Amino acid sequence: MENLPELGHAPLKQAPAIADPTVPGFMGAAKACGLRKDGREDLALIAAPQAVPAAGVFTTNRLPAAPVQIARRHLAQGRLRAILANSGGANAATGEPGVEACLRCCQEAGRLLGCDPHQVAPCSTGVIGQLLDDAKVRAVLPGLTASLSPQGLTQAAGAIMTTDAFRKMAVAQAEIAGRPVKVLGMAKGAGMIRPDMATMLSFLLTDAAASPAALASILGPAAGLSFNRASVDGDTSTNDTLLLLASGQAGHAELQPGDSGLAELGRAVTRVCQDLAAMLVADGEGASHLIRVLVTGAPREDQARVHCYAIAHSPLCKTAFAGNDPNWGRLVSTLGAEAGRQGWPFEPARLNLWIGDAHLCREGLYGGAPAEAQAALVMKQPRYQVHLDLGLGHGSFWVLTSDLGHEYVNINADYRS
Amino acid sequence: MENLPELGHAPLKQAPAIADPTVPGFMGAAKACGLRKDGREDLALIAAPQAVPAAGVFTTNRLPAAPVQIARRHLAQGRLRAILANSGGANAATGEPGVEACLRCCQEAGRLLGCDPHQVAPCSTGVIGQLLDDAKVRAVLPGLTASLSPQGLTQAAGAIMTTDAFRKMAVAQAEIAGRPVKVLGMAKGAGMIRPDMATMLSFLLTDAAASPAALASILGPAAGLSFNRASVDGDTSTNDTLLLLASGQAGHAELQPGDSGLAELGRAVTRVCQDLAAMLVADGEGASHLIRVLVTGAPREDQARVHCYAIAHSPLCKTAFAGNDPNWGRLVSTLGAEAGRQGWPFEPARLNLWIGDAHLCREGLYGGAPAEAQAALVMKQPRYQVHLDLGLGHGSFWVLTSDLGHEYVNINADYRS
Repeated sequence: MENLPELGHAPLKQAPAIADPTVPGFMGAAKACGLRKDGREDLALIAAPQAVPAAGVFTTNRLPAAPVQIARRHLAQGRLRAILANSGGANAATGEPGVEACLRCCQEAGRLLGCDPHQVAPCSTGVIGQLLDDAKVRAVLPGLTASLSPQGLTQAAGAIMTTDAFRKMAVAQAEIAGRPVKVLGMAKGAGMIRPDMATMLSFLLTDAAASPAALASILGPAAGLSFNRASVDGDTSTNDTLLLLASGQAGHAELQPGDSGLAELGRAVTRVCQDLAAMLVADGEGASHLIRVLVTGAPREDQARVHCYAIAHSPLCKTAFAGNDPNWGRLVSTLGAEAGRQGWPFEPARLNLWIGDAHLCREGLYGGAPAEAQAALVMKQPRYQVHLDLGLGHGSFWVLTSDLGHEYVNINADYRS
Repeated sequence: MENLPELGHAPLKQAPAIADPTVPGFMGAAKACGLRKDGREDLALIAAPQAVPAAGVFTTNRLPAAPVQIARRHLAQGRLRAILANSGGANAATGEPGVEACLRCCQEAGRLLGCDPHQVAPCSTGVIGQLLDDAKVRAVLPGLTASLSPQGLTQAAGAIMTTDAFRKMAVAQAEIAGRPVKVLGMAKGAGMIRPDMATMLSFLLTDAAASPAALASILGPAAGLSFNRASVDGDTSTNDTLLLLASGQAGHAELQPGDSGLAELGRAVTRVCQDLAAMLVADGEGASHLIRVLVTGAPREDQARVHCYAIAHSPLCKTAFAGNDPNWGRLVSTLGAEAGRQGWPFEPARLNLWIGDAHLCREGLYGGAPAEAQAALVMKQPRYQVHLDLGLGHGSFWVLTSDLGHEYVNINADYRS
């Protein structure tokens, strides 16, 4: 299946080391501005020496946070000079005062960087309903701007972490018109799984040269094959933001939509997004497993997609994953329930189910004790695949999800107190 | 709002006592037949002296268990003599052998009762994928049939319990054509929340006289206002079954569709279904709260319904309920996310949210610390309402749900071992 990402074998809660976490044409920095009560760095700045082509993908939540409203508006011009991201408050459901506070931050950043405030993309994350205390942000902006450096991107990636168990960065290389180009990405969170951020933020930086339209044409599909297939608890936050900025310092001619070199850049961007998305799910809410749910044999791809999410969002399936329990009956029943809700075809006698290579359900019936024993071994691995084939057609889809154990309840039951 | 059931104030894990748990024209009995490993009673029989009008509502799961397939077929004739229900195995995803095992049980019950096997409705519950050991059932059927008694209905209600914390029975009275009539109901489970049953079963018995078509015309709407609005984890099992049997012993003329007396019977049936549905949710998976989610002001009722379920199925909202956390941001964000997914209108500035009487979100903004403190007190109650008004129209809906705490994970993570 095309674009099926590797699951890998690494421990869940760590990212591979990156030898050179810089990208020509970008600088980063971070400071503590006091929005977070624990005093940790909670403000990150990423900037280029001049405005560069950019594209973004934002939450579909109809209650978008103030920074999402502003960033979307600023990005309409296709060029950004900087990204200003804070944790410690989502600035969502804060009405016009929230918008004004956000704009004051952009204005001050623009003044300090010597650019139009419209070239600053703001991002916020934290509890919904808390107005951004922009005075705290503006107070540290001079020092933050002054400390920008090419090596500071790692620090920025650290500052957007909140309760993340590890810093999430990924890199990919490509060659465009004979020139080596680089895509470096950072991310935090996964959906709304984490109390302190309540959001997913991801920033990708490349030294490739591409027009805003070209970047937009590859970023949407890359999100569709990565972040939009990663689900921990099915929630879409008010603040989800994915940005891609291209400095052009690789020196090749600027890519336009349809250029062959753009497909190459698109593959690198997709790869980085997929690596980051897998890290987000692996770091989900005390997750002990990263599970790829693959549904094949559906009449149509959109039906396979809905079936994937039915499994990925079923508390019964997710608790079985947490318990390493090869409970195939729950899995096939979940598909049957969804087919019933949707009025879709479903033929139990055509159904097959594998956990890893264990063929646990054969043509709708129990695959036998050896298969069950084999599946139980697979489920002890930190990463594995659950594959359901409906036997009805050629529609297929996959999503990445995590299990649901006690740590999820610990994190989410009372996180504000 | 019409048909909004009372939440009540009773402790969650108990049912009100029923002074006279009998219904003229019905007998019950229960035995242990060894399907359950713990030796508890796992086989219940409910029977009438002759075949009586009946109606049923079954799971919409496209992987219906063998007993659901058979019960649906037997009910097509509109009359039943008996209900034979076992726990200790769902007999789902068992193919043709499962159907044959189920039919052998009906045949033996029919032989012993002296009726057509088609007048026996079978029900099973337990782990999916395990073939029913019908020899065990048939071995105890003679003793079970011999022990039928009018007082045995309570025992039958006890035998369909599996991990239920309490026996679920409810009663309602009505007057039809000057005659008092009674509706007695029993139920077990809630969706797929319980390991040992993996299903919801409910049987309603009345001494009213009504044709099969009349019964069907009131049972569907009653389910729509009760069991179909009760959700613990959103799963629809392979075995869900709701049956209504009418002995006619109240002595009035047989009700037909459209008769005015039928509406009276329908109210009593709905009331019993609502009481039982509330008990199912209250007994859900270690639930510590019974929450009525009410959405008003939607453009259409079906949109209000989807919004209700978005909240009732959100792990983030349900863990906040478990933590008594008045996290209004999660609630309004969940609605915004759903509106975004569906492409529906949503205006944050028109949104209002109450927990109990605490007005926690006013026109999209934080309702203030006093409202939050008040909401926190409400959330310590075992039963309360969460009301969201979208301010867009006149569509409304409600559902009953529970919270998601550690006990859910305990029950579901490893239940088969």
